[in-house]
Amino acid sequence: MTMESTESAPPAPPAVEGPSETKVALDTLWVVIAGMLVFFMNTGFAMVESGFCRSKNTVNILSKNFIVFAISTLAFWFIGWGLMFGDGNGFVGTSGLFFLGGEDNSPMTGDGYSGVYGAIAWATVPLLAKFFFQLVFAGTAATIVSGVVAERIKYLSFIVFSFVLVAFIYPIVGHWIWGGGWIAGLGMWDFAGSTVVHSVGGWAALAGVLVLGARLGKYKDGRVQAIPGHNMALGTLGALILWLGWYGFNPGSTMAAAPGDISRIIITTTLAAAAGLLVSTATAWTMLGKPDLGMSINGMLGGLVGITAPCAFVSPGSAVIIGAICGFLVVLAVMMFDRLQIDDPVGALSVHLVCGIFGTLAVGLFAQDAMLPNTTGNGLLFGGGAKLLISQLIGVAAVGAFTFVVSYIIWVAIKATLGVRVSEQEEMEGLDIGEHGNAAYPDFAVSMISSSGAMNVGYASPKPKVSETEKVMR
Amino acid sequence: MTMESTESAPPAPPAVEGPSETKVALDTLWVVIAGMLVFFMNTGFAMVESGFCRSKNTVNILSKNFIVFAISTLAFWFIGWGLMFGDGNGFVGTSGLFFLGGEDNSPMTGDGYSGVYGAIAWATVPLLAKFFFQLVFAGTAATIVSGVVAERIKYLSFIVFSFVLVAFIYPIVGHWIWGGGWIAGLGMWDFAGSTVVHSVGGWAALAGVLVLGARLGKYKDGRVQAIPGHNMALGTLGALILWLGWYGFNPGSTMAAAPGDISRIIITTTLAAAAGLLVSTATAWTMLGKPDLGMSINGMLGGLVGITAPCAFVSPGSAVIIGAICGFLVVLAVMMFDRLQIDDPVGALSVHLVCGIFGTLAVGLFAQDAMLPNTTGNGLLFGGGAKLLISQLIGVAAVGAFTFVVSYIIWVAIKATLGVRVSEQEEMEGLDIGEHGNAAYPDFAVSMISSSGAMNVGYASPKPKVSETEKVMR
Amino acid sequence: MTMESTESAPPAPPAVEGPSETKVALDTLWVVIAGMLVFFMNTGFAMVESGFCRSKNTVNILSKNFIVFAISTLAFWFIGWGLMFGDGNGFVGTSGLFFLGGEDNSPMTGDGYSGVYGAIAWATVPLLAKFFFQLVFAGTAATIVSGVVAERIKYLSFIVFSFVLVAFIYPIVGHWIWGGGWIAGLGMWDFAGSTVVHSVGGWAALAGVLVLGARLGKYKDGRVQAIPGHNMALGTLGALILWLGWYGFNPGSTMAAAPGDISRIIITTTLAAAAGLLVSTATAWTMLGKPDLGMSINGMLGGLVGITAPCAFVSPGSAVIIGAICGFLVVLAVMMFDRLQIDDPVGALSVHLVCGIFGTLAVGLFAQDAMLPNTTGNGLLFGGGAKLLISQLIGVAAVGAFTFVVSYIIWVAIKATLGVRVSEQEEMEGLDIGEHGNAAYPDFAVSMISSSGAMNVGYASPKPKVSETEKVMR
Repeated sequence: MTMESTESAPPAPPAVEGPSETKVALDTLWVVIAGMLVFFMNTGFAMVESGFCRSKNTVNILSKNFIVFAISTLAFWFIGWGLMFGDGNGFVGTSGLFFLGGEDNSPMTGDGYSGVYGAIAWATVPLLAKFFFQLVFAGTAATIVSGVVAERIKYLSFIVFSFVLVAFIYPIVGHWIWGGGWIAGLGMWDFAGSTVVHSVGGWAALAGVLVLGARLGKYKDGRVQAIPGHNMALGTLGALILWLGWYGFNPGSTMAAAPGDISRIIITTTLAAAAGLLVSTATAWTMLGKPDLGMSINGMLGGLVGITAPCAFVSPGSAVIIGAICGFLVVLAVMMFDRLQIDDPVGALSVHLVCGIFGTLAVGLFAQDAMLPNTTGNGLLFGGGAKLLISQLIGVAAVGAFTFVVSYIIWVAIKATLGVRVSEQEEMEGLDIGEHGNAAYPDFAVSMISSSGAMNVGYASPKPKVSETEKVMR
Repeated sequence: MTMESTESAPPAPPAVEGPSETKVALDTLWVVIAGMLVFFMNTGFAMVESGFCRSKNTVNILSKNFIVFAISTLAFWFIGWGLMFGDGNGFVGTSGLFFLGGEDNSPMTGDGYSGVYGAIAWATVPLLAKFFFQLVFAGTAATIVSGVVAERIKYLSFIVFSFVLVAFIYPIVGHWIWGGGWIAGLGMWDFAGSTVVHSVGGWAALAGVLVLGARLGKYKDGRVQAIPGHNMALGTLGALILWLGWYGFNPGSTMAAAPGDISRIIITTTLAAAAGLLVSTATAWTMLGKPDLGMSINGMLGGLVGITAPCAFVSPGSAVIIGAICGFLVVLAVMMFDRLQIDDPVGALSVHLVCGIFGTLAVGLFAQDAMLPNTTGNGLLFGGGAKLLISQLIGVAAVGAFTFVVSYIIWVAIKATLGVRVSEQEEMEGLDIGEHGNAAYPDFAVSMISSSGAMNVGYASPKPKVSETEKVMR
Repeated sequence: MTMESTESAPPAPPAVEGPSETKVALDTLWVVIAGMLVFFMNTGFAMVESGFCRSKNTVNILSKNFIVFAISTLAFWFIGWGLMFGDGNGFVGTSGLFFLGGEDNSPMTGDGYSGVYGAIAWATVPLLAKFFFQLVFAGTAATIVSGVVAERIKYLSFIVFSFVLVAFIYPIVGHWIWGGGWIAGLGMWDFAGSTVVHSVGGWAALAGVLVLGARLGKYKDGRVQAIPGHNMALGTLGALILWLGWYGFNPGSTMAAAPGDISRIIITTTLAAAAGLLVSTATAWTMLGKPDLGMSINGMLGGLVGITAPCAFVSPGSAVIIGAICGFLVVLAVMMFDRLQIDDPVGALSVHLVCGIFGTLAVGLFAQDAMLPNTTGNGLLFGGGAKLLISQLIGVAAVGAFTFVVSYIIWVAIKATLGVRVSEQEEMEGLDIGEHGNAAYPDFAVSMISSSGAMNVGYASPKPKVSETEKVMR
């Protein structure tokens, strides 16, 4: 690529080629590295959820969080991607439905993602990179469900629901907002998925818990029986991995190596997480008397969920306010769900559903400098009127109604066929042995807090276990 | 760098300079970030292996996985790199042998790696970045051994073998395939190391286990005595870290920020892992009656090992098939090794050796669009004939024979000098106290499943331990 | 952006624009990805410190390590950044003090960071990206303190000290070296923070431990009572995460995607870690009789701390020597602090303070090819005379004196107002229940090694815990 300048020379080829190729490579690296960070959130969810539940259900929770990404991968590859990003109508993608054949209509901002440099359409981030990034988001929505239904759901039933969620429910509502569908048309913005990912996971889980019911012994004589998690080190490890993963989730949603946007989103994300952590800690300290670590973790996660939709559109100061409100909301919501006897072992409804809704609305309140091409103006608190806020509300309500109703129907159908809940006997003994034939900690003396509140001390597998393998081999 | 265009101007300097420098920087970032992900696999191996073994050997397993990368670093810096990538003959590198002085002859595809942009040789990814990337691969081969020989090997003997493996055995066979040696000359391809890394680790470990023998009590009266792992949360954590690390291992082996290649490799890698996980789970569920978590983990790892060689050469659909076959193979292989009384506490032979072999052969079956400069055509199933498959087979057999025989000799030599196995007494009490003077979990009540199958319940260190430090200081 | 070349055309706009923008994007990605790796070190510290302490204090240690980054974030955003990098005098930044308003005067080497390409000032890495990178460093200094004061400090008192450290103490001494202050003017170099980060954390912690005193029962009748950590798997996990994080810490401090520098720094960092690990293991093996895992971990960390200041200025061979010396120093220092009855539960003073000092001096000994713009010549061992070494010494001493004295005053003030130490009763029962109302492992049978050396076996929470939430809700 030399550029000689002589009069007789034909017009030089567009000199943009060289740099553009490097720019595409750079954008692609950013998209896939961010996707890897989001993939790592599966580890975070697995550790938080197993840490916050009892030792007797650890293998089951780990298994659910482990297999759910594999299920999501096949479901999204087979059908979900096409429904979400394929050409079609405002309601669903209908072209290129199977095996990753669909077009890509996602309304993302990055040049490399949309394939436009200046006025010239150009090489873009490869489709498979975009698929990877969207896949790890789909997987996140599915994994949110697993915590809420933990400690009593049948393994197979969870697998079936996860497949339906990622193959159909998530991509359809995702199409409405990220696939150029009817809600996007209203001027509603959800930058990284407070609604598309977090509240969808939350609504699907809420439907599940209503069909499933509470864990045995959780609500007795109208009073809440606390069931402490078995390993706070795992829980904290998971929480910190999730925070790390969010640095892929939010700034990665630029889908292009845009230095200014990425830097600002990292800071709004960090500030919201810190504010959520501090306010939830202070709230728990004030209201409950002690700075409960579980509340600190869920407050931090709430701050992150809350900043997910507005992270690209608000100032650092607004991010602190949004995170702080989420930290406070999480503590209240945990108490509220317990008062409603909606049994969520890990607090995921408070984190993902409540803060997912608030974060989406926060766009309508705090947005200041909308960065997307066709800006829709400031939020209410910055003089923009209620127009944007109303769009956000419509988005929240429509996604919530569709996801909840369809999920509820699916859960009821599963209940009528496979069943959703393990037997009382199995629930008391733990799902690890019942569902998987494994014990998580066979060398350790563990107490089993039964549903009646009585405690049995002993080993999960009191005799050297005869493995399933061995039985087959005899 | 301004480009004024006047008739009288001298010919412009090659305008490629600017972008090229940025491209080299981008390639380098990709290589080192991918290398960091592979480095993190040490953490994954440490967690999987300690989680899958008994609590009384935890400190020893952690110590082995921790020190092995330090040993590998010095061994590969001192001699291994030169043997593997230095100029020489088809069998071994002989130039610049010591302290990282050798040339780099690795037959990688990336422009930035090979130093060719278009037709112009140009600045490349720095040698030290390539060394880092190759070092973390060498470390992986060594760490594979540690799981197979766990729970009875002497710490010092493991250290000595690891040094020999990374200083001599691994780089010599690596030279044959990745260093421009005789197998590369046959047109055999192993993109990211199903053979070079995984099967080499597996063959070295197989030799070790044959010299070492099974753990006490594992095979009694011809029957398999299951010895369950002590912490499935650690095991799952490690498995997910390994999956993450594979996003450095496979797409990083492009060694250049090539957007299309990287994106496709990420997807083939993800699909194979998901398929391996699902098929191994289904196989265990069907054959053993329950969806065993350990089998799910090993099936996923098997899918990843299997796709490692062909990840750049096969379609997403083929990746699913390869992963699925590996998921099935792993379950069968675990049973087979037990039937042969080859005691592999963590299933690493099934994962790394069996799937490493199959994955290498899969190139000869499924390769469709060979991307390396001098393409060798399609695989057997895509009309390419058996030529490629035969090259793959020769590579597998030659590497296996050399690695196994030399490793066996080294293990026998170590046995004759240092000894390879701890005393029966130490094995029953656990290697943590015997080899390291530490207990992994001194605050917890743990059961010690002895080799006779009897269980002793108690604390690993029943009295407040007098530290070694204290003894010295008195 | 097309470039037609006709005689009549006006002079073309500087063609450097295209590539430059990509270069800035690339530099920014590197800075933020490196920052994320450093952020992940919070997870490493949380796991190492909780693993190395007793189970009864696990929730407290996790909580401290979790909240300290949130505190650091607000403190550094509110005031610390302005004091550290704002324009001002040689002693402190005085402009743009609040809410991240200050200029950026950090004397970093990268083109993208300083905004100079060739001779042209140009777009640079965005301020918010630089803030993120510096913030995670500030958070590291604060988190170093938490391990040293563990198992007896009041939660609130730790929070207050952390705020003061990150808002005032750290940024003031940081300004002296990284903010263009008086020590930088002497020609002292601390590339990635052996002094600025690690020794500052160490001095602040040393002051704290002198005010706090030793844990109950640690030194009895002039003899050291060993108090083993409760979970070596957590400790090793944390150590490996820290090693990974250091690949952001050291090479990220280039603050630009400089391929040669980054590659070399990765290798010096890796070699020093490996040498520290091997030498500390060998030292412990020789002096204490067994290869203690805790010593291996601290030796590796010591090697990393030691190479942090000189990583960009020394050869790979020198890095091995520096790491080896640190591995040896750590073992000696652990014994020395115990002999002085300075009770550091995790060995952080030996790692961060002792090796932080040595590493800074090592620049004056081993520096060979100073890469910063205004080079100050070789180190003493490479014929450069003692000038550089003396500058390094002055930096170490000045930073140490200021940090220690001010920290001591703050600790005394906290002691006089809030108190620094929990009650004897709470310390014996564990800080988890006392400070947080949580148990880390409520399902497991744990032993409580009391301060008197007697052991009580039982469950941390013998009755199903009535949660604080429930109390409020009744």
